[in-house]
Amino acid sequence: MEKQEFNDLLQVKTKELDRIIQGFLPPEEGWQKTVIRAMNYSVRAGGKRLRPMLMLESYRMFGGKGTEIEPFLAAIEMIHTYSLVHDDLPAMDNDEYRRGQETTWKVYGEAMAILAGDGLLNYAFETALKAFDRVDKTDPEALKRVADALAVLAREAGIYGMIGGQTVDIEAETQPEPVTEAQLTFIHECKTGALIVASMKVGAILAGASKEQLRTLEKCAEDIGMAFQIQDDILDVVGDSKELGKPVGSDEENHKQTYVTLYGLEEAKRLVETLSEEAVEVYLKSIDGEHEFLEQLILMLSGRRK
Amino acid sequence: MEKQEFNDLLQVKTKELDRIIQGFLPPEEGWQKTVIRAMNYSVRAGGKRLRPMLMLESYRMFGGKGTEIEPFLAAIEMIHTYSLVHDDLPAMDNDEYRRGQETTWKVYGEAMAILAGDGLLNYAFETALKAFDRVDKTDPEALKRVADALAVLAREAGIYGMIGGQTVDIEAETQPEPVTEAQLTFIHECKTGALIVASMKVGAILAGASKEQLRTLEKCAEDIGMAFQIQDDILDVVGDSKELGKPVGSDEENHKQTYVTLYGLEEAKRLVETLSEEAVEVYLKSIDGEHEFLEQLILMLSGRRK
Repeated sequence: MEKQEFNDLLQVKTKELDRIIQGFLPPEEGWQKTVIRAMNYSVRAGGKRLRPMLMLESYRMFGGKGTEIEPFLAAIEMIHTYSLVHDDLPAMDNDEYRRGQETTWKVYGEAMAILAGDGLLNYAFETALKAFDRVDKTDPEALKRVADALAVLAREAGIYGMIGGQTVDIEAETQPEPVTEAQLTFIHECKTGALIVASMKVGAILAGASKEQLRTLEKCAEDIGMAFQIQDDILDVVGDSKELGKPVGSDEENHKQTYVTLYGLEEAKRLVETLSEEAVEVYLKSIDGEHEFLEQLILMLSGRRK
Repeated sequence: MEKQEFNDLLQVKTKELDRIIQGFLPPEEGWQKTVIRAMNYSVRAGGKRLRPMLMLESYRMFGGKGTEIEPFLAAIEMIHTYSLVHDDLPAMDNDEYRRGQETTWKVYGEAMAILAGDGLLNYAFETALKAFDRVDKTDPEALKRVADALAVLAREAGIYGMIGGQTVDIEAETQPEPVTEAQLTFIHECKTGALIVASMKVGAILAGASKEQLRTLEKCAEDIGMAFQIQDDILDVVGDSKELGKPVGSDEENHKQTYVTLYGLEEAKRLVETLSEEAVEVYLKSIDGEHEFLEQLILMLSGRRK
C-alpha cells in the first residue's frame, strides 16, 4: 500500500469511527446535562480513535459484517476517555492540558470531572449492552458472543487490566526506591496494553474467531500495546510538543522511570522495532484474512512508517 | 409475623447476603493489591445490604430459584459502595467518617479512593456478567433475561439514574438560589431511588416477571426509594448519631434543603407513611407471591415498625 493511499484510508476510517462514536453519545439535555456535557467534551477532545480502529479491523479481519460491533466501538473509546479524565485529576496526575485542550476538571471542576468519569465508565457498559439488540435474539450462539465480548471488555478495563496498571503506576511514583523492570512491565502491560488487547479480542470474538485465533491475536495485541507504550516514552524524549498536543519532557521532569531511562534511547527504539515486527510478521501474518491496513497502522504507530 | 420472628429472619438473611457478597470480592493479591484492599475495605464497611435484600426478595417473590441472581446481588452492593466512596472524596462531600469508620480516602488516600471507586464500578459489571455462566447457555430466553437485567442495572446506575441525581445534587449545593421542590424530587428519585428500582427490577426480570408485573413493581420501588430518602432526612433531624453511625444535623449545618426543611417534620413523616403504605397496600399486595417479609422490611425501614 502506498503512503498516500494509507493516509487517505486512515482519514476515511477515522472519520467513520468518529461518526459512529458521536452517534452513541448521550444528548445534552435534562436536569443532569452538566455531567453529560462534561462527558461529551472529554470524548470529543479525543484523538486517533486508535482502540476502536483496532477493534473494527480485527472484527473485519475475521469476517465480521454486522452492526453489533458499533456499540462496542463507542464503549471502548468511552472507557479510554474516562481513564484519562480521572488520571488528569489533581489527586492523580494533576494535568491541566491534554491534546492541546484544557482537561475536564479544569473546565468543569473536580467534582463534575469525577462524575463525568464515572458517567463515561457506566455509559460504556450501558452502550455496549445495546449490542444484544443488534443480533438475532433467538440465536444463543450470537447472544453468547456478545456476552463473551462484554466479559473481555470488563476484565481488561478493570483491576486485572487497566485499573490494576494505574494502581501500580500511582504507587510506583510515591515509593522511595526506583521502579523495577518487573513493575514497569506490569504497568505498561496493564495500563496501556489491556485496552489494546480488549479492543482486538472483542472484535475477534464478535466475528466468531476460534480459540486458537484468539490466542494468536492476543499475543499480537500484547506486542502492539507494549510497542506503543515504549514509543510514547520515546516521543516524550525526542518528540515535538506542538505535534503531540501535550508537553514533552514531563517524564524526566517528574523523575519518572520509563523504558528509555531503564534501557537508553537506542535500546528502547530497538525494542519497539522488535515488538512491532513480531506483531506483524509472526502473529498477524499467521491469521487468514485481510489485514494489510492493520499492518501499516502498526508500523506507523510504532514510528516505523512516517 | 411477630417482631422477634422478623428480626431473627432479618439477621439470617443479612448474614446470608453478606456471605454471598464477600464470596464475590476479589482476592487481595497481585501487584495491584492496594486497590483491591481499598475496594474490599469499602464493601466490608457496608451495613444493611438493603439493595441486595430487596433484589433477592423480588426474585423469590416471582418464583426465582436459580443462582444467576447471586452475581447481581454482589454487583448492586458494589455499585452502591463505589458511589459512597466517590461521594466522600474531598472534592465531593469531603466526609471523613461513614458508618462509624474512616472513609476510604482517609485510609488509602485520594488517588487510591478514586481508583477503588472506579474498580468497584467496573468490577460490579465484571461480576454481574458471571450470571451468563449460571444459566442454560443453549436457552436464548435465559440469556436474554440476564442481558435485560444488566441493561436495567447499567441504566439505573448511570446518568439517567444515580449519577444523574448526584450531578444535580452537587450543582444544587453551589447554586445561589434555594433548591426547588422539582430539583429535590429529581435528586431523590435518581440518587436514592434509581438503585432501589434497579434492585427490585433486576430480581423480577431474572425470575421471569411479566411486563405488567414489572410496571407494578417499579411503582412500588419508586415509593420505597422516596420513603427511605425522606426517612433519612428525618433521621438527620431527630436521629441518634451513635445509632446511625454517622453525624446527625449535617443537613442543617450545610444549609442543605431537604423534605424536612421544605415541608416541615410532621408533613415529612406523613409523606413517608403515605408512600410506604401505597408501596405495600396498593402495589405489593396486588402481586401474587410470597412477600410478607418484604412488607415488614418496608415498614421497618420507613420507621413504622420499631
